[in-house]
Amino acid sequence: MECPFCHPKPENVVYEDKFIRILLDNYPANPGHLLVVPKRHVTSIGNLTEDEKLALLKGIELAVKALKRALKADGFNVGINIGKAAGQTVDHIHIHVIPRYEGDCDYPEGGIRKAVLNFPDENLRNTKNRLSSKEIERIRRVLNGSE
Amino acid sequence: MECPFCHPKPENVVYEDKFIRILLDNYPANPGHLLVVPKRHVTSIGNLTEDEKLALLKGIELAVKALKRALKADGFNVGINIGKAAGQTVDHIHIHVIPRYEGDCDYPEGGIRKAVLNFPDENLRNTKNRLSSKEIERIRRVLNGSE
Repeated sequence: MECPFCHPKPENVVYEDKFIRILLDNYPANPGHLLVVPKRHVTSIGNLTEDEKLALLKGIELAVKALKRALKADGFNVGINIGKAAGQTVDHIHIHVIPRYEGDCDYPEGGIRKAVLNFPDENLRNTKNRLSSKEIERIRRVLNGSE
Repeated sequence: MECPFCHPKPENVVYEDKFIRILLDNYPANPGHLLVVPKRHVTSIGNLTEDEKLALLKGIELAVKALKRALKADGFNVGINIGKAAGQTVDHIHIHVIPRYEGDCDYPEGGIRKAVLNFPDENLRNTKNRLSSKEIERIRRVLNGSE
């Protein structure tokens, strides 16, 4: 199968520069779930160049800013799943930026630590968290500096 | 209250260099749960220097290597909770490196996306995931290059 992060669907690309892309996650854990990915097909953090590392971190900051501004996000779970045992399904490095909203969950404590809990991720199988085209457009504008 | 990452308990510090420390998490989500923190009390990614950013990423790689070697970890959830709505409790930046072991959970799919699930983090209230002093010593040796 073609790597979905080397060849993303154009409608999912909300930002692109020399080193990285920011994509809409196809199975959003919350509305506005983004992925920051290097353009090169890199599978391990150790194989990123210094430029790519700094560009990915800048991409995280940019995604956080856009989600605050466009969707009024109150917090963020930011991170990466490494290996099948950790839930990774695509081997091209991708950093999740999951916006959090006050009240989106009764138990926010723990955050990404909850990855280990023995419950299935119900959001992998539904589409309730998808954004409207208007919201996507707003994110795109903030990411690209036109708002 | 004194910041626990500016003044960590010495027995929790498993690695230290010019810019960062690696600490044992006090409420491990899995055995070997580590935290990579900048030495400076920085509360926002945007306020890290470039040196600190690269040192933190190197710290993640080092932690991953040590947990593979010392504890035979099969995977990793790596990331950061930003804001109370995302589960953050200490405002000094800290990156979680949570080792995963095949079979530690029936549903690894989703990984850190599961932060949004409406279940409490049961590991915040127990100590079953603590390491033996022998295991801690092994991690310390690998992190410090003496093994």
